Amino acid sequence: MLDLALLGTGGSMPIPERFLSSLLIKYKGSKILVDCGEGTQVSLRLLKWGFKSIDMILITHWHGDHILGLPGLLTTIGNSGRRAPMMIIGPQGIKKIIEGLLASLSYLPYSIHLVEVSEISIVVSFNKHGLEIKEADESSQSYGDLIISTLELDHSSPCIGYSFYVPRRPKFNPEKAISNGVPKNLWKRLQQGETVIYEGMTIKPSMVLDDNREGIKLSFITDTRPIDTIPDFIEGSQLFICEGTYGDEQDRERAIKNKHMLFSEAARLAYEGKVKELLLTHFSPVMEEPEKHIENARRVFPQTTIGYDRLTIQLNYP
Amino acid sequence: MLDLALLGTGGSMPIPERFLSSLLIKYKGSKILVDCGEGTQVSLRLLKWGFKSIDMILITHWHGDHILGLPGLLTTIGNSGRRAPMMIIGPQGIKKIIEGLLASLSYLPYSIHLVEVSEISIVVSFNKHGLEIKEADESSQSYGDLIISTLELDHSSPCIGYSFYVPRRPKFNPEKAISNGVPKNLWKRLQQGETVIYEGMTIKPSMVLDDNREGIKLSFITDTRPIDTIPDFIEGSQLFICEGTYGDEQDRERAIKNKHMLFSEAARLAYEGKVKELLLTHFSPVMEEPEKHIENARRVFPQTTIGYDRLTIQLNYP
Repeated sequence: MLDLALLGTGGSMPIPERFLSSLLIKYKGSKILVDCGEGTQVSLRLLKWGFKSIDMILITHWHGDHILGLPGLLTTIGNSGRRAPMMIIGPQGIKKIIEGLLASLSYLPYSIHLVEVSEISIVVSFNKHGLEIKEADESSQSYGDLIISTLELDHSSPCIGYSFYVPRRPKFNPEKAISNGVPKNLWKRLQQGETVIYEGMTIKPSMVLDDNREGIKLSFITDTRPIDTIPDFIEGSQLFICEGTYGDEQDRERAIKNKHMLFSEAARLAYEGKVKELLLTHFSPVMEEPEKHIENARRVFPQTTIGYDRLTIQLNYP
Repeated sequence: MLDLALLGTGGSMPIPERFLSSLLIKYKGSKILVDCGEGTQVSLRLLKWGFKSIDMILITHWHGDHILGLPGLLTTIGNSGRRAPMMIIGPQGIKKIIEGLLASLSYLPYSIHLVEVSEISIVVSFNKHGLEIKEADESSQSYGDLIISTLELDHSSPCIGYSFYVPRRPKFNPEKAISNGVPKNLWKRLQQGETVIYEGMTIKPSMVLDDNREGIKLSFITDTRPIDTIPDFIEGSQLFICEGTYGDEQDRERAIKNKHMLFSEAARLAYEGKVKELLLTHFSPVMEEPEKHIENARRVFPQTTIGYDRLTIQLNYP
């Protein structure tokens, strides 16, 4: 189970009805924030999910509407009693920009680890000692805690998209274990995904487990033109959160010039990526009522919803 | 005539009901912003006074709750069509901090002049070519456009207070001019405050003008402990806007530790500075209803009001 909230659904500048594009993910008592425009902390306060347990902040790119809320939020997180270190991940070039922003902070009672990435796939484990991160491998798809992957996008600055995958462990099958002659004292280790060498034999988890089960996949793509690599990256997402900066077809030239997407382009990606639901966000401040343009997306991909500030969604195993 | 609006009345962090302490002054079609915490641009948008004509931004100090709205606001001002240069004034050390913040901006279509000051008194003239600034002298008190003065305060970082004075020209007195034997062809220049040498004689404006008239004085003091130099600096203000971070006497220790003021301390300054009205702002986010503590100020200085976001006030010549 994974909870999420759109903290803001605007692009470019915050307006009274819409803070800037930001996504909060709650998973196993921990929180991950994706992007942090000006006003994110106000929206978070309205949401009442708390500040202290934000363990990780992922940044898509360094444009102001995605990071200018960071120094204020980090201060507020410090005031909320956090002492555990905080990890901030973003694309190439993000370190220098964030270090510049943080120069305006007098003191933070916790440390910050800034990491620049391009395309990665990592497994994040949450335990009482904080976050643990390692490179994802094949077994992570079934046994990792949360897999975060990134994709390079096509914007006017280095920009990355994120996907989140919560694996679902295969069911233990005692009949299969017995028929494969696996000794009972190995069952527990195998259930946890460990491959065991026993009396010279390699015993794999699949010898005691049912087939793989589908986990929860969420993907978040903003700010970019639609590119060929996106459908694969978001494939099978239960929820695909995507920028829809412009609602109308007549804004196509502007979308191309500013490296953003039309509603219909986001919908095309959702269709090609075979996602279950598309949730649009990052609306141009000029677009007062994004709902008015929804048919431009639904014509291409019917399961489209317009995001709004503090919309919360719970994703469960299929 | 001078219009002002409190854009935010909170300290420390923005909360849904209260943006961070910021003051907007409108004078002769130009605008001056004092401090710019996160959310200032949202409040300004709600106020509907426009972005383009902000010609000058004054910063009290570099703490996040006073400057983190700056990069976003400067971007929005650029998007509003501004091309004229913008002057930003602040205390020692502000340049480095603001330069760090501005590194997150991709492009501004106007130039920024950053100026560090300690204690100054300048005359600002507004004309169609933009702002003109020169050091204030005695004649500025009657003939300058707007006099801005600063005072060093006592906070945990270099911090300055601001006062604004709109001089009122003395009335022309033709009887006085005639009885002093001043030729008619000099009257206009003398009326404009010019001292004229005529046939070897020095003719001063006071020879054709009535006595000096009181102008409009506004002062803005945040974040500081109450110090001896403040009453003189704010003396005679029509409106004294002052931080009242804590409402209750029981927060005295906290006020001393954090270098802030109690309501009663701000009121004491208002009394000693013989101001007409005190307007409190910069409330701690912990103080949910500042109105509840107003008697702590009124006991010392009855003409006290509690500020709130987007309170607007017009100041006229007395």
